[in-house]
Amino acid sequence: MTTAVVVGNPKPASRTLSAATHVARELTGREPDLVVDLATLGSAVLDWSDADVNHLVEQVGASDLVVFASPTFKATYTGLLKVFLDRFAGGNGLSGVAIPLMLGGSAAHSLAPELSLRPVLTEIGGTVPGRGLYLIDSAHDDPAAYAEWVSATRPAVDALLGRRRSSDS
Amino acid sequence: MTTAVVVGNPKPASRTLSAATHVARELTGREPDLVVDLATLGSAVLDWSDADVNHLVEQVGASDLVVFASPTFKATYTGLLKVFLDRFAGGNGLSGVAIPLMLGGSAAHSLAPELSLRPVLTEIGGTVPGRGLYLIDSAHDDPAAYAEWVSATRPAVDALLGRRRSSDS
Amino acid sequence: MTTAVVVGNPKPASRTLSAATHVARELTGREPDLVVDLATLGSAVLDWSDADVNHLVEQVGASDLVVFASPTFKATYTGLLKVFLDRFAGGNGLSGVAIPLMLGGSAAHSLAPELSLRPVLTEIGGTVPGRGLYLIDSAHDDPAAYAEWVSATRPAVDALLGRRRSSDS
Amino acid sequence: MTTAVVVGNPKPASRTLSAATHVARELTGREPDLVVDLATLGSAVLDWSDADVNHLVEQVGASDLVVFASPTFKATYTGLLKVFLDRFAGGNGLSGVAIPLMLGGSAAHSLAPELSLRPVLTEIGGTVPGRGLYLIDSAHDDPAAYAEWVSATRPAVDALLGRRRSSDS
Repeated sequence: MTTAVVVGNPKPASRTLSAATHVARELTGREPDLVVDLATLGSAVLDWSDADVNHLVEQVGASDLVVFASPTFKATYTGLLKVFLDRFAGGNGLSGVAIPLMLGGSAAHSLAPELSLRPVLTEIGGTVPGRGLYLIDSAHDDPAAYAEWVSATRPAVDALLGRRRSSDS
Repeated sequence: MTTAVVVGNPKPASRTLSAATHVARELTGREPDLVVDLATLGSAVLDWSDADVNHLVEQVGASDLVVFASPTFKATYTGLLKVFLDRFAGGNGLSGVAIPLMLGGSAAHSLAPELSLRPVLTEIGGTVPGRGLYLIDSAHDDPAAYAEWVSATRPAVDALLGRRRSSDS
Repeated sequence: MTTAVVVGNPKPASRTLSAATHVARELTGREPDLVVDLATLGSAVLDWSDADVNHLVEQVGASDLVVFASPTFKATYTGLLKVFLDRFAGGNGLSGVAIPLMLGGSAAHSLAPELSLRPVLTEIGGTVPGRGLYLIDSAHDDPAAYAEWVSATRPAVDALLGRRRSSDS
Repeated sequence: MTTAVVVGNPKPASRTLSAATHVARELTGREPDLVVDLATLGSAVLDWSDADVNHLVEQVGASDLVVFASPTFKATYTGLLKVFLDRFAGGNGLSGVAIPLMLGGSAAHSLAPELSLRPVLTEIGGTVPGRGLYLIDSAHDDPAAYAEWVSATRPAVDALLGRRRSSDS
């Protein structure tokens, strides 16, 4: 099983990245195999022929579980994250489980992961169990802020990943 | 394992009902255990204290898989379906897999199951694998219209139901 | 100029109704000409041939400004409101300005008026200036809770109604 | 009165640009004062301190009418367009009328301008009259494809712009 984290914060090494890594760890019990911090790619993320970025798209697409994380800009995910997602094939760009995660300054945009990020992930083939997760960013380092969502979502993730593991063996 | 179909068409015995039953059959290999054709409930569906309707809510909520089906009215699900869904508890009203299905006269509203019906089902606790399904209503009796969606969605449904079955035994 | 308020709370004489009336007053400077408190219609709201309900649909459709108000059920508008909206013609069921208003217990569903109620109102022909308004229901009787939205929205409403008034004269 | 067109197609001089210019012309009777073809900005669009891009944001924000146009990628607007929109201030980044326009290969994503692009434009302060416009891209040079939407939307645009003009004089 391989897992990845994709972070759409324009600033590198953000709280968004910490939160995404925490979610991946809670769902799988170990560190993600791949961390794509989009801010570190520079302008290559805009170049559709860039081989390094295309390789990242392939690796993320083949992962068994991917956490897609973004701060909330204009009540939805960032343009930076969408620029990267635009490179995935419609329908089968993702082959595994996809987790929508967004952080914001207040509760006002809590519906954004479910209503705006999730449909993009299902459009490119992701299987999204449970609800998208929204966190108040000041609580990003408080495990209690994740607990209810994790306990509600992990059973479905286990079922989906369990099946993949048995078919791999 | 128990399965149910909930149909929000104001006319009873509709093409929506046929389509929902077909989807349930394709995903589980047998007839649904419960068919709730909301049009047949009359005004009881508006009465929050009606014992028969409350019993249906409990049965649907406890089912392992439920297909929620609606024609497209005003670019989204019908009020009749929502009146019934309003009775489910937030967060844990559904305990199983939920499938959003909508039928419409043209392709123009294809995004409606994913963008409008699905978030209601996840809000009440449903696990929604894959994308919501939208069908052109004139194709409701053509198995080919369902085939791509069924083959894309069934593996995730199997994984989710398989886990339930093993934990039930 | 005629104005109306439509209230989708299953309980009559609700805080939703007070809030909707307040919004209509703030935008037009006077009481609404028509108040449709859907809870008082009983099961007639489900009967597509009911002459009284159809007459209300006509009156609302012909109004220059209508506030459509709902409590938040399952992260969106109520089924009761949608049952009524389903009776309006697609494209031209509304001929005037439409205002989406929702009340909820916490800030978590603040995006619902804009992302879910508004598209239904535009689908039936309403012109929706500004953003949908979401209120924490405990603040429904505090004019300050409406002030920022009113001052941001009233100029566009004035422009749209001004034009209608001059063409009426 | 000043008008602008913003085009989020990663390829410059696209059909998206032609369509956006056509819409601006139909609504205002003349050529747009400013055309921002985002593909021509290169990596500067990712640089939040770039003075030229920031100047474009100011000019677009101050325009009386702006058409925001995008091809449909992953069932919604492009990341390139969102990268630009992320630079506008929430609430008052736009001071005028905003028109959401999307082009796609089939009718399947017709709801995208209304359900996904429009909420971003209202979030940054735009006044969006009528419905978002979706065009099948092969019809981008057929005036008939725009006609129904233009005749439904122009009266509200006239009312909103008329008011601005009189207050400017």
